[in-house]
Amino acid sequence: MRKISKKLNVQLIAETFLAFGIDHIVLSPGSRNGALTMQFANDNRFKTYSVVDERSAGFVALGIAQQIKKPVVVCCTSGSATANYYPAVTEAFFQNVPLIVLSADRPEHLVDNFDGQTIRQKNIFETHSVHNVQLSESEETDDLTRNMLLTKYALTDCIHKSAPIHINMPFSEPLYEFVTEPDIVIDNITIDEKEYPEIDVFDYMRRWNSASKKLVLVGLHSPNEEFNQLLTQLANDDSVVVLHEVTSNVHHPRFFNKIDQVIFPYPEEELEVLKPEILLTIGQNIVSKKVKRFLREQKAQQHWHLDEYWQPDTFQILTDKIETKPEFFLEQLVTFINPKESDYYKKWNQIRVNNEKKHQEYIQMIPFSDLKAFDSIIRNYPENWQVQYGNSTVIRYGLLFDHNSSNPIFCNRGTSGIDGSTSTAIGACIASGDNTVMITGDISFFYDSNALWNANMPNNFRIILINNGGGNIFKFIPGPSDTNVVEDYFETKHHLTAEHLAKMYNFEYQVVSNLSDLENSYKEFYTESDRPKILEIDTRNSANDSILRTYFSSIK
Amino acid sequence: MRKISKKLNVQLIAETFLAFGIDHIVLSPGSRNGALTMQFANDNRFKTYSVVDERSAGFVALGIAQQIKKPVVVCCTSGSATANYYPAVTEAFFQNVPLIVLSADRPEHLVDNFDGQTIRQKNIFETHSVHNVQLSESEETDDLTRNMLLTKYALTDCIHKSAPIHINMPFSEPLYEFVTEPDIVIDNITIDEKEYPEIDVFDYMRRWNSASKKLVLVGLHSPNEEFNQLLTQLANDDSVVVLHEVTSNVHHPRFFNKIDQVIFPYPEEELEVLKPEILLTIGQNIVSKKVKRFLREQKAQQHWHLDEYWQPDTFQILTDKIETKPEFFLEQLVTFINPKESDYYKKWNQIRVNNEKKHQEYIQMIPFSDLKAFDSIIRNYPENWQVQYGNSTVIRYGLLFDHNSSNPIFCNRGTSGIDGSTSTAIGACIASGDNTVMITGDISFFYDSNALWNANMPNNFRIILINNGGGNIFKFIPGPSDTNVVEDYFETKHHLTAEHLAKMYNFEYQVVSNLSDLENSYKEFYTESDRPKILEIDTRNSANDSILRTYFSSIK
Repeated sequence: MRKISKKLNVQLIAETFLAFGIDHIVLSPGSRNGALTMQFANDNRFKTYSVVDERSAGFVALGIAQQIKKPVVVCCTSGSATANYYPAVTEAFFQNVPLIVLSADRPEHLVDNFDGQTIRQKNIFETHSVHNVQLSESEETDDLTRNMLLTKYALTDCIHKSAPIHINMPFSEPLYEFVTEPDIVIDNITIDEKEYPEIDVFDYMRRWNSASKKLVLVGLHSPNEEFNQLLTQLANDDSVVVLHEVTSNVHHPRFFNKIDQVIFPYPEEELEVLKPEILLTIGQNIVSKKVKRFLREQKAQQHWHLDEYWQPDTFQILTDKIETKPEFFLEQLVTFINPKESDYYKKWNQIRVNNEKKHQEYIQMIPFSDLKAFDSIIRNYPENWQVQYGNSTVIRYGLLFDHNSSNPIFCNRGTSGIDGSTSTAIGACIASGDNTVMITGDISFFYDSNALWNANMPNNFRIILINNGGGNIFKFIPGPSDTNVVEDYFETKHHLTAEHLAKMYNFEYQVVSNLSDLENSYKEFYTESDRPKILEIDTRNSANDSILRTYFSSIK
Repeated sequence: MRKISKKLNVQLIAETFLAFGIDHIVLSPGSRNGALTMQFANDNRFKTYSVVDERSAGFVALGIAQQIKKPVVVCCTSGSATANYYPAVTEAFFQNVPLIVLSADRPEHLVDNFDGQTIRQKNIFETHSVHNVQLSESEETDDLTRNMLLTKYALTDCIHKSAPIHINMPFSEPLYEFVTEPDIVIDNITIDEKEYPEIDVFDYMRRWNSASKKLVLVGLHSPNEEFNQLLTQLANDDSVVVLHEVTSNVHHPRFFNKIDQVIFPYPEEELEVLKPEILLTIGQNIVSKKVKRFLREQKAQQHWHLDEYWQPDTFQILTDKIETKPEFFLEQLVTFINPKESDYYKKWNQIRVNNEKKHQEYIQMIPFSDLKAFDSIIRNYPENWQVQYGNSTVIRYGLLFDHNSSNPIFCNRGTSGIDGSTSTAIGACIASGDNTVMITGDISFFYDSNALWNANMPNNFRIILINNGGGNIFKFIPGPSDTNVVEDYFETKHHLTAEHLAKMYNFEYQVVSNLSDLENSYKEFYTESDRPKILEIDTRNSANDSILRTYFSSIK
């Protein structure tokens, strides 16, 4: 016998979600959201997950949504619980992941009246969401209709803008009255087609064809075969250089996949040949600081930004906002373009070939260290495993190496925070079912250690923890290195390892501290198991910072 | 040689803090806030603390501010870091703790332009703070003066309203240029006296003296000898009943310190004699749901709320808002009041005496369980130790027992969240220097496990963890108990213990699972050590929920 909440608005929200095809719900325990929890958890049309820590729950939901490419709901009780979603909401906002925060609240008149677990939830995410709704508790037909419409508009925005929304639902007691037959039935809802502004593709085509130095820079992008093909067509042209990062998930020998190996402060005369006439950026969230500086300094005459959601002026030279799906635009553009004779590609490629040689020589030469470990880790990703990178140094190391096209790559580059990478990776692994390996630094790993507290932890989840004993990124800061301030307040040096957390959360665990042990560990590490696994790479005794610094000076 | 940031606004903010007597800074590592970090950490007029996880850092700062009773700064880098302060900011807002969020930001024109680690920080805490300031980066004299004034007004509000403020500071590179002599010197600033509305005390006196049933309910309150004495004078009157909770930190034999033992749904004729004519509430954040329901149903003719900061209508009968420091008002009131003949106190006291006897008998009788453990824990607090309670069931158990007046009691009842109690307790221990014991349930303890990752962990900090294997509070929810939904999504049953975290963070650790082991453990547990300690009480095999339920029916 089904248990259905007697509260009509609970039925209504659940049925509206289903009518929109929204069925993944990450629940955090609480009383005020109890009616919602019961409704979702007792209805097998929903896939529900329990995550206690709302901060982690927000990122788990983000990881799920990132994979299934449709909205995911996080649902929590009233009070500060909601505030713990904030970091994930900001990441979803700037990464364009459709996240629905469904927060239970006390009845509105009790807010600010100290009724316990009550904060000002209404509109709390206003600056980092695309729609905010306060539902009514009333069960009058008019109010139910209004709630349904408000929810419908919010969900439509969530889908069209691929961004977070917030639905706040006040609840009076009793919270746990049930019926066995639903009072509310909603037919499938057809979502209005998203409309895009008209684009004069012929004009772009003419400009494109008349330029002989065109630089395409691809930002954060999910794997997409169609997109990859269009980009390949575009790149098959000596006047075109395509730069991308590991997080762009595009692959072709003509693409430049390791920006930081190519872009340097070259002398002015060399820069002249590298400088584009047209810069076409597709998407945003570029990791490389070098390319940002290069493009700000070597100003293209035209900068077209192509993206469905954002039109940022990242390089302070934006001339054209092309607000549409990249595939739509590229599909039309490639039909009309003529490859142009130019030595633009050749010039860039010379640098690449040169630097690639130096890169290989340098990597061969160096002792065990973060850089050496990354070379090994990345060469040894098993086919088709999904890779999730943590932020800070980890993703920056990742940028320096070739990645196999069978490995989809993800990284929270919306806000580039270290706060929820592991939780996101676990959500992604749960939702995709793919074998997934998370590469993380020590500070991010310990920061998000509650990620491991997850009742749905998949056995095919793996963590590679590069533990260099602190936030190594801060060793590169010039200036303050002669005091203990750097160690204490920037690096925040520590002696922690994952050993105890692995025991606590029932992960298989091994630690290695040299290359041969590392290379020998992969087979066992990637083998199927009835438990998830952590491989810790201890590089605390290596000169990680000077090895990386010398890397850049040696390939320059 | 001192290292002083070349950035005049960094000097300015640091000197303004000092001029206001603000000198405790909790720093989280980051690059954008690097100039601030260097400035504070290199200046021994500041007491700086490093906490990596901003969520924990926010609560640590709250714990410090709670003890030193002046504003404490939390300072972080740009991006989602700031969003991690949100839970602590909400708690500080509703607990009236002066917290200063000082967030470093990218220059304003880079916000929304995907410059990395950039969110919309400006005004992000607007709904849960009393002042929000966006500083300018400019070093022109006019702009410096404006920044100084903006900061001064914000700090004045922070102090007067004892509530969070947010100062957002944009920074352009270079971040790490130093000078050795300060350019900015600020003399001590005298803060304007806070002004309170005029209060006609004579009118209150007349009304007080003419009523023969007066109920005083004291909310969350820091220990304060003067306040305690005034309350004692007020209570020395048979027409007055003073109810308070363990978190009120007041003590007198005439005060009713265990509300939940006295307040029950009595028959109407008995309620008539308990119902007050005047209800005087002092402060807010009452834990007891029973007293809230009683006061809403047994409507007093007059409800006076006495508080400096908030005038909430918690019981939906508010008639008089007395907006001043409680001591100011009480000092005047007690001068003019005449004790009145009444059996009001006697009627309440009869219930208390009766129920106290039943309480003692019941506690004697029951087997080892959460309730039994609490009786033992509370009887065994060493003299003068500070006690910090976690939320949810823990504080509710705490309410049922007498506490020694030498033990100050704290609990995050602003939002009553489980998210930062351990971090708060650690901050309080660090700031007060007092021997401190934290009593926590398992879900809150694991939720805030990053609290243990604290470079300043004091050796005189103790944790008593009552581990009943899940969120036991949800066993009391009527209705849904016949499905596995309760275990999976409400209780979130687990098999975790503190053992591994204790090893990881270098705490002494012991676990007990019966009364005699518990009673034998205190001596060692409270003995001085060079490490902090965790005492875990395993009650997973006890019928905790039915024992508590029967407790209430047996004393009724």
